Amino acid sequence: MVELQAAGEPVAPCCPPLTERPLTAEESERTAKMFKALGDPVRLRLFSLVASHEGGEACVCDISDVGVSQPTVSHHLKKLKEAGLLASERRGTWVYYRVEPSVLAAMGQLLALPTTA
Amino acid sequence: MVELQAAGEPVAPCCPPLTERPLTAEESERTAKMFKALGDPVRLRLFSLVASHEGGEACVCDISDVGVSQPTVSHHLKKLKEAGLLASERRGTWVYYRVEPSVLAAMGQLLALPTTA
Repeated sequence: MVELQAAGEPVAPCCPPLTERPLTAEESERTAKMFKALGDPVRLRLFSLVASHEGGEACVCDISDVGVSQPTVSHHLKKLKEAGLLASERRGTWVYYRVEPSVLAAMGQLLALPTTA
Repeated sequence: MVELQAAGEPVAPCCPPLTERPLTAEESERTAKMFKALGDPVRLRLFSLVASHEGGEACVCDISDVGVSQPTVSHHLKKLKEAGLLASERRGTWVYYRVEPSVLAAMGQLLALPTTA
């Protein structure tokens, strides 16, 4: 079990595949936050821009062409960080964001189909 | 390519892994809807209840203990259907819901990590 410190609080890997057993209320609360963060088109696109960027990280300075202002980009990246989906590091003028791979893996596992379907 | 008719309109499988390339605006619009539908704790829990129910399907009559009324359960199941995540079939008094496996697979693929990370 890897504990992340993406946004100041630990994000435990959640959960078993949805097809295996129902989530508990507590698991649903925690996991819905991540889905909600990706439930906005601009935010989802920004997340994919960071995830697919060279070196696996990107700063606001790397992002253009999404049709929203730089402050809006910053705002969305912060929201993704708060949801535990991105980690950040300040280097000089810029804050660099990268995807938390274990969170992505946990969400992927949640949506995994049974192997004997 | 499998085209689904879950909620009256085709849901094309979307998209490449987020780590592969940025989503287009159109892909983000389409995919964010699914994430948004799972971004509510009660709805996510209901989705997991249907996904993990015996036979892979459930009706409102199978669902209790989620702390919300039956009409609220019905409302959330309809929202999940509208997002293309559930398919439904009326049999007698009840509407039975089941997870659209190809949609789940597409979302899982979206969150897949690169094989050579």
